[in-house]
Formats: sequence, C-alpha cells, structure tokens
Amino acid sequence: MPLPEDRQSKARRQKIMQNALTLFILKGYFTTSLRDIITVAGVGAGTFYNYFVDKEDVLKALLEGFAQDIIQHITSYYSVEKDLLERFVETKRITMEVFADNEALSELYSRVAGSSQIIDDCLKTFEDTLLAFYARNIEYGIRKGVFADVSVPPVACAILAAEKYFLYKWIVQKDITKEEMIEMVVSFHRTLARGLLRGQTP
Amino acid sequence: MPLPEDRQSKARRQKIMQNALTLFILKGYFTTSLRDIITVAGVGAGTFYNYFVDKEDVLKALLEGFAQDIIQHITSYYSVEKDLLERFVETKRITMEVFADNEALSELYSRVAGSSQIIDDCLKTFEDTLLAFYARNIEYGIRKGVFADVSVPPVACAILAAEKYFLYKWIVQKDITKEEMIEMVVSFHRTLARGLLRGQTP
Repeated sequence: MPLPEDRQSKARRQKIMQNALTLFILKGYFTTSLRDIITVAGVGAGTFYNYFVDKEDVLKALLEGFAQDIIQHITSYYSVEKDLLERFVETKRITMEVFADNEALSELYSRVAGSSQIIDDCLKTFEDTLLAFYARNIEYGIRKGVFADVSVPPVACAILAAEKYFLYKWIVQKDITKEEMIEMVVSFHRTLARGLLRGQTP
Repeated sequence: MPLPEDRQSKARRQKIMQNALTLFILKGYFTTSLRDIITVAGVGAGTFYNYFVDKEDVLKALLEGFAQDIIQHITSYYSVEKDLLERFVETKRITMEVFADNEALSELYSRVAGSSQIIDDCLKTFEDTLLAFYARNIEYGIRKGVFADVSVPPVACAILAAEKYFLYKWIVQKDITKEEMIEMVVSFHRTLARGLLRGQTP
C-alpha cells in the first residue's frame, strides 16, 4: 500500500509518473509493463509500491494532475478577466493551449479510451473533474444574470465533447494543426456563448 | 472482386450485413472472423466475395448505410418543417432517435473507435458524410440570412462531437437513458441555435 502523501517524496513521485508517461507514448499503454516503468524510472519495486498501487494507478495520477493543471490555468486567468462572456470563450483557448503544450498527456487521453473498463473509469474521473468545473462556471454566469437559465449539464458535456473531438483531430488523426485546433474550439465557443447570453431567446 | 452493384442481390447483401452486425455485437468486432460471418449468414465463401472484399468492407458498408439512413430521416423531415431554427434543433432529435432505434449500429460506432487505422478510416468516412450534410444545412441558414455568418466547420464538428459524446454516455457508459440522451442533445442544440441566429452579436 502506498505511503501517506506527506511521507512521499514529491520529486520521486513525479519521476515515476514522467517515466511512465514517456513509456506509455513510446511503447503504448498496454504493452508497457510495471517492470518497464520501474527499470526506466530507476527505482526498486518496493519504492514503486510506496507511491502507486499498479500501472492504472499511475495513469489515474497522470490524468488527475492534468485536470488540475487545466483548472489552475483557467483559475489564474479568472483573476485578470472579469467579463463573463469573454471568460467563457477565452478559457477554452487556455484549455486547448494546455492540451497543446502537453502532447504526451493529450495523446494518452485521446488514445486509451474504450480499451478497458479500468481505463474508462480513469478517464471518467478526469472528465468528471473538468465537467464539474465547467458546470460551476456556467452556473455562476446564470446566477449573475449574464447567462440565460439553460439546463447546464448538456452544455458542460457538449463543451468537453467539442474539446475532445478537436483534440483527437489534431493529435490522433493529424487532420488539423495545433493552431487550427485552438482556433476551431474558440470559434465554436464564440457561437455557443452568444446562445448562452441572457435575453437572446428567439 | 465484388460484382457490380446491379448484379448483386440486395436481399443477400443485406443478409450478410445483418448477420455480420449481430456477430460484431455478440462476439466483438475483432474476434469475429470472416469464417464466422460466412457460416452464420449461410452463404459460401465465393458468394461472400461477390459482395464484399473483406470484414472491414462489411463494416464500411454498415456505417455507410447508417449515415444514409440518418440523412434520409432528416431530409424527409425537411419537407414538413420549413422554419430553419426549429429545423436545426429538431433534426438533432431525429438523429438521436435514429441512433436510439439502431442499438447495434450505435454500439458498433461507439466501441470500435481508436482500435486500428483501417477502422478509423471507416469511421472517418461515416463522420465526414454526416459533417458535410450538417455543414450544408448551416450554410443554407447563413445564405438565407437566418443564421449569423459564423465559421461553419467548427460548429458542424461540435454538433457531431456532442451527438457522439451523449451517444457514448448512453450506449457504452450506460450513464443516461435513451430518453435522457435525446433530451440532452436537444437541450444543448437549443442553446447553440440561439447563438447561431443572426443579429445576436453581443
């Protein structure tokens, strides 16, 4: 069983995660063994188990860190931009920039889906974290009277769906460039933002 | 090499496709062999090759037929509903109803993604057909002056992304019911439709 977090070395935890991520991209998630991770990270098996339960646990930690990274970037932006409409659109640019800056994690997220129940559960936790954050922000806009009183979950899910789709088009299909991905996401959210605005009922 | 289409028996072609689909769902696409399909369809190998090149060719035909089915349903609805905004929202309900009525094809579409290059190419053809159709309809609304002059591909892709996401939530994750799936897609498109309307620039 892993050590309690305050007894773990952050640097060592990060080192294991980074080496695992490199292997997942180079060899593929499924063909990477725990032994591969231990060898490349240069730690003993005992040390590994002080930090993680198994390979899935490393994947979960990588995705959890990624979600927190995205949320942190958006939250810092909130302190400089107060206009809710502008925020709604520009936070999507920031999100896609975080994806673009983390190619390995983006590729992992885009490629592992659908391959097993355990993986899908890891992905669900990652997506639920983002969805809850997106939903809170839309609800805030509704409370402030800037956004119309729409049903929030369909909009939050559609935002994530669009981000995921354009990410896939860039990193897996290589159909669009990084810059096109960001611009397409922003362009779509500009249209959606107009629909969210209060007093736009047709 | 398959026979030219006018020399194929439609009934036999359909029979092979339906039996293959049943096997893909029961056994999984990858563990279903060509021999399985031939046996269950009750045709000889020679007959099979009069209709299809290989297993992927059957998958492609199934998805192509599915896309045409969706487009046909939407097109018939166009002849009864002329209001472009109403059309934009209600066609999404119709699309999701076609998905809901074709559980096996929906499951196939939701589950096979990302598993191989050949499959991804089949899926891309299916999605490109729908995307082109969605884009044409938005462009029509813009030409008629009902929709704002937005960049069309980001909106068309986001529509497909949302439909795909809610479909996945229903058929794979079993997170929502069929009815919830339809209502969430419609609700999101109602918000998006308001954003598409002309003269809604904030």
